Amino acid sequence: MKIVALAGGVGGAKLAHGLAQTLPPEDLTIIVNTGDDFEHLGLYISPDLDTVCYTLAGLANPDTGWGRVNETWQAISNIEKLGGQSWFHLGDQDLATHLERTRRLKEGQCLSEITRDFCKAWGIHHAVIPMSDNPIRTIVNTDEGELAFQEYFVHRRCEPRVKGFRFDGADKAQPTPGVREAIRSADAIVICPSNPWVSIAPILAVPGLRSKIEAKPIAAVSPIIGGQAVKGPAAKMYRELGIEPSALAVAKQYNGLVSHFVMDHIDSQLESDIRSLNMQTLIINTLMKTPDDRRQLAEDVLNFIGTNR
Amino acid sequence: MKIVALAGGVGGAKLAHGLAQTLPPEDLTIIVNTGDDFEHLGLYISPDLDTVCYTLAGLANPDTGWGRVNETWQAISNIEKLGGQSWFHLGDQDLATHLERTRRLKEGQCLSEITRDFCKAWGIHHAVIPMSDNPIRTIVNTDEGELAFQEYFVHRRCEPRVKGFRFDGADKAQPTPGVREAIRSADAIVICPSNPWVSIAPILAVPGLRSKIEAKPIAAVSPIIGGQAVKGPAAKMYRELGIEPSALAVAKQYNGLVSHFVMDHIDSQLESDIRSLNMQTLIINTLMKTPDDRRQLAEDVLNFIGTNR
Repeated sequence: MKIVALAGGVGGAKLAHGLAQTLPPEDLTIIVNTGDDFEHLGLYISPDLDTVCYTLAGLANPDTGWGRVNETWQAISNIEKLGGQSWFHLGDQDLATHLERTRRLKEGQCLSEITRDFCKAWGIHHAVIPMSDNPIRTIVNTDEGELAFQEYFVHRRCEPRVKGFRFDGADKAQPTPGVREAIRSADAIVICPSNPWVSIAPILAVPGLRSKIEAKPIAAVSPIIGGQAVKGPAAKMYRELGIEPSALAVAKQYNGLVSHFVMDHIDSQLESDIRSLNMQTLIINTLMKTPDDRRQLAEDVLNFIGTNR
Repeated sequence: MKIVALAGGVGGAKLAHGLAQTLPPEDLTIIVNTGDDFEHLGLYISPDLDTVCYTLAGLANPDTGWGRVNETWQAISNIEKLGGQSWFHLGDQDLATHLERTRRLKEGQCLSEITRDFCKAWGIHHAVIPMSDNPIRTIVNTDEGELAFQEYFVHRRCEPRVKGFRFDGADKAQPTPGVREAIRSADAIVICPSNPWVSIAPILAVPGLRSKIEAKPIAAVSPIIGGQAVKGPAAKMYRELGIEPSALAVAKQYNGLVSHFVMDHIDSQLESDIRSLNMQTLIINTLMKTPDDRRQLAEDVLNFIGTNR
């Protein structure tokens, strides 16, 4: 069964890792959000792409979920001493990724090509593809005005109240060729437990992408467990938008798109409401604490979408 | 006595450090070669400026003379893993300097302004000024054709045979305003024991600079001791240009400019030949092995030029 997974940062990377442990390389393509990408200190930084790649390569910091394991911080602490900006935490190993990526982009290579080369260098055998080679930038509309995503997310620590989102450049963007091909041959789509507002929505905003996947079986794993996000501002965003954060809220957001909804035991009381959205449901453990949890969740999701379509 | 010192990399930085230990900040300006500057991995790198600053700040690696003490190499080793260029040894702390400098240059600040800010951040009280804010690039003409300086110096390890040098952009460059003011009020000039071909010649190639200093007492310290360069390719360059490397060869190169020549005991047999060039001579220990040697040499040079003019 050929699978395309849509993933954002930490939560998405964990399930992508589980899927990669379960499926052979030819059967899995991971499409990654690039709405978080930004230029900082002259470097092109692609946070979700790096989190997914580092996680798949076993290079990720297990404590934070993002960044590199055994990281050092010599460069950024010296930038701070020089009066430079240090709010975005760039580790020394991580810097290599941004420096080399930026150099290649300036040489005219595209992001998907660079990502393919980096994956090869990091020993990643499954395809990891940015959703688009064109710039799409998530802009957060807040009570303090519009903020670029990383400005909101890292610099302002998600403190401003969210009023909405837009994906700047999405109307002019195209899916990367690899994305189109992977979707065409996919038997099913897995939406990883990433933030629906700022990780999955930007992917779905790439022109043509949503229409290409909606005919297929699509399983989504709720990133909201017991009304809370495992990591990140998803629950806070729901609340600020006037929506009670819950697996049901996630399901409603994916209404009309998702056929299979995966939710945690703790949310079982929401099952009938979610079923009424014309989704099949799977109630399991969805919290991925260990590498084994990732593989188990991946197997459960694959069995669910494979046996029930 | 107000002093302007002309300096290149390691040897120049050592004497500059000695002078800074001896003279109060208002009496010393160090003008540094920027002919070695280059862009690499998207970063603006200014090797001599950094060597002088790191040395004055006590941040230099005492083993190499260049780069930072207690340096780590996480970024560059990861760039290498990604197939990027790793021939120029960029340490993690050092990277901060290049990243922040590059960012500021792109914002429109000039190199001398950035250097002043960095010196302040590093606790350097003496003025360190790049020779020009305009790009001047040392090009080495070799038996393999013309090579950009760092390509020759680091990437090719000075292996190609030297046929000559040119300083690209020098004709269109201007000395930085700080350079002009410092020279105007200087009582004497000290040419540090830096490579005459590729450290001092580019400084003297800045339009107007040579004519502004030549009326003043100028002391030069020979970088060639016993026919050898303490560090770097100076002796090799002399040989490849058909000149026997010696303190006399250095003195001949500075003929008509330098009034006071400082040479090592080991070269005392060359004294009369050098005196015949109409230079006063000082024969002392010129090899700077310890920080104290730097201060001692600085004091000797200052006494020489102060008492003998």
